[in-house]
Amino acid sequence: MSELKIAKRLIMTPGPVSVDPRVSQAMSNSILGQFDPDFTAIMDETMELIRKSFLTENTWSFPVDGTSRAGLEAVISSIVEPGDRVLVPIIGRFGHLFAELVQRAGGIVHTIECPVGEVLPQEEIIKALDIIKPKVLAIVHGETSTGRQQPIDKVGKACKERGVYSVVDAVATYLGTTIPVDEWELDAVIGGAQKCLSIPSGITPITFNERFSEAINTRKRVEEGIRTNEETEKEVFIRSNYFDLTQLQDYWCPKRLNHHTEATAMVYALNTGLKIAVGEGVENRAERHAYHHEGLKRALEALGLKIYGDANHEMKMVICVEIPEGVEPNEFRKSLLENYGVEIAGSFGELQKKIWRIGLMGYVVEKQNILTFLSIFSLFLQQQGVQGLNPVKALDTLVKYYES
Amino acid sequence: MSELKIAKRLIMTPGPVSVDPRVSQAMSNSILGQFDPDFTAIMDETMELIRKSFLTENTWSFPVDGTSRAGLEAVISSIVEPGDRVLVPIIGRFGHLFAELVQRAGGIVHTIECPVGEVLPQEEIIKALDIIKPKVLAIVHGETSTGRQQPIDKVGKACKERGVYSVVDAVATYLGTTIPVDEWELDAVIGGAQKCLSIPSGITPITFNERFSEAINTRKRVEEGIRTNEETEKEVFIRSNYFDLTQLQDYWCPKRLNHHTEATAMVYALNTGLKIAVGEGVENRAERHAYHHEGLKRALEALGLKIYGDANHEMKMVICVEIPEGVEPNEFRKSLLENYGVEIAGSFGELQKKIWRIGLMGYVVEKQNILTFLSIFSLFLQQQGVQGLNPVKALDTLVKYYES
Repeated sequence: MSELKIAKRLIMTPGPVSVDPRVSQAMSNSILGQFDPDFTAIMDETMELIRKSFLTENTWSFPVDGTSRAGLEAVISSIVEPGDRVLVPIIGRFGHLFAELVQRAGGIVHTIECPVGEVLPQEEIIKALDIIKPKVLAIVHGETSTGRQQPIDKVGKACKERGVYSVVDAVATYLGTTIPVDEWELDAVIGGAQKCLSIPSGITPITFNERFSEAINTRKRVEEGIRTNEETEKEVFIRSNYFDLTQLQDYWCPKRLNHHTEATAMVYALNTGLKIAVGEGVENRAERHAYHHEGLKRALEALGLKIYGDANHEMKMVICVEIPEGVEPNEFRKSLLENYGVEIAGSFGELQKKIWRIGLMGYVVEKQNILTFLSIFSLFLQQQGVQGLNPVKALDTLVKYYES
Repeated sequence: MSELKIAKRLIMTPGPVSVDPRVSQAMSNSILGQFDPDFTAIMDETMELIRKSFLTENTWSFPVDGTSRAGLEAVISSIVEPGDRVLVPIIGRFGHLFAELVQRAGGIVHTIECPVGEVLPQEEIIKALDIIKPKVLAIVHGETSTGRQQPIDKVGKACKERGVYSVVDAVATYLGTTIPVDEWELDAVIGGAQKCLSIPSGITPITFNERFSEAINTRKRVEEGIRTNEETEKEVFIRSNYFDLTQLQDYWCPKRLNHHTEATAMVYALNTGLKIAVGEGVENRAERHAYHHEGLKRALEALGLKIYGDANHEMKMVICVEIPEGVEPNEFRKSLLENYGVEIAGSFGELQKKIWRIGLMGYVVEKQNILTFLSIFSLFLQQQGVQGLNPVKALDTLVKYYES
């Protein structure tokens, strides 16, 4: 068997996206032991970078060694005890994932839903908090399946006032927009790797506050084989060992209590990706996403496509376009990838063959890529038989936008 | 903040160990989408390589995206239902970890233990199967905490005959010795990444057979948000979503049902690390470990150290030496690392300040490294004040061993 040969791609999906060569370079560094002081120094620096990325002072800001849903599951399974009521506002697929994770943890799910393509008014969510009186609110910030961004600036405070713990899935919005965790008084927030942070999938930065920490530590149990005589076995404990955030706390602090063997190369990637993002500036990075989003959206409209969903609540990291007549949606995507190395995404459920999702995430979001994408996408779409398109006008719109 | 600067290390611990530069190189390849045909081809090839590494024909041979204990937890939480009896033979710390994982999954743990530093006769384990009549036997193959290798060539068959599922933690032995999964009739086996395979921690190859697959699929539930109308919600399901092997099966097969976003760079690393290992030959690799183990052991004895534990059941991937008088065990390790970049490990529990563990795993295991290690270790140990050592004799013994 021969070595890997990876073809060139322009990935315009909602992740995974291409990574900065500096991140790849960092992953190639040699391995350090998990308790090597040089490595624990990198861990500490990474925690500080995670704090900056979330605009928070939370001590507890560290990664979970797994893909984004590992981060979601770690937070949910640590806070949700069997029988706990959890309110899950659902505006798309990833709301269902939260519901799923709560069910798996033994929690009782209460949902509120809105029509697909819209978001829920925060007042409705707060009203539901009063009716349902849940222990936890689990809410998705950026619902990539519909391209909507759920407003969450008021729910954190409302939760706190009611003794509810707020948990936010910010996997898709993290570092593509600002998420001021402290200002919004959110208790636990999960970011993403392979999206706007633009490092490979496989590690997930999270942050949570002292209030949340106290709640999960009521079920803290040091594992067998590590437990000392003073620590007795506990009857009530978190159902997962790997995702037990209280054990991860003991590893991501000066105690350095052995848990798993930290994923060295992924920590290098996270550290470097965060340095790049924080170096750019969290606000600047948000503006960059919004700027290119606006340009490409105008160009796609000039092309003759219809943008999908409530325009007041669009995510800046993805553009959803209605699939025009005249092409088979999945075949088109396949041909675009095979012929030009350009990848866009479909969606799920009732939107499956109705919209395409064009991702604008992190490293990929710069003029040359977006012009390249627009050229190939619009001309290939016309060539495949879609009527009434105007590729020249589309490109002209984008170039003028960038020049203005 | 500046870019990562990683100092040179010679890691002689039971993992994580240094990786082959070809693996680092592979991780630097650009990202592919998780459904890109080029990527799914790499996934398929990786499955075939995992099969070869475990000497098995098992269709279900794929990685879990997390560190080794993620692999262990995925297998345990998928097979163990609340109330299930599980037999866990314990010969050291990692047996306790299995017990812990079973408890977290709601299972009822039955243990049998032997004195520290020894292993359990398989007949004893088989007797216990008859008394306890468990659903699952969860057994550690290589117990790095004591350096012992538990014989397991007969327990798989015994389990099968009794309708018990055998689960083996081969994290530390995987690709450091041969584990003929089919010949030994083992139902599910978990390998390791950062040990004898020598890729970075963060992804874990596992394999399981059809019998095991059928058992876990009795609780199969397709998740909310992906579930179609024909699939109804299930009352009894696996408690984890991320570790639900039945969902991973649907992703690691032609169905390619969306679960998590595969950890691209880690899959590149796994694919390349396995190509190197399988290219060397699983048997040759085992011989290489045994050969250098014998050489270094003789040299350490010539130095004047005492080798710890039952010599008939030693792992070939680690040498446990009794800590000589005249040094503070942890201070010595710290100084060795700080001054010479050489890392060795302590142990856990009652062995904590009694033995050091010198790892001989994967990429690191070759003449030059081992000679370098022995030179630095023996001279530094003498310099630190340990009496009665003979570093010259130690080196002489090793050189003669290599020359013979």
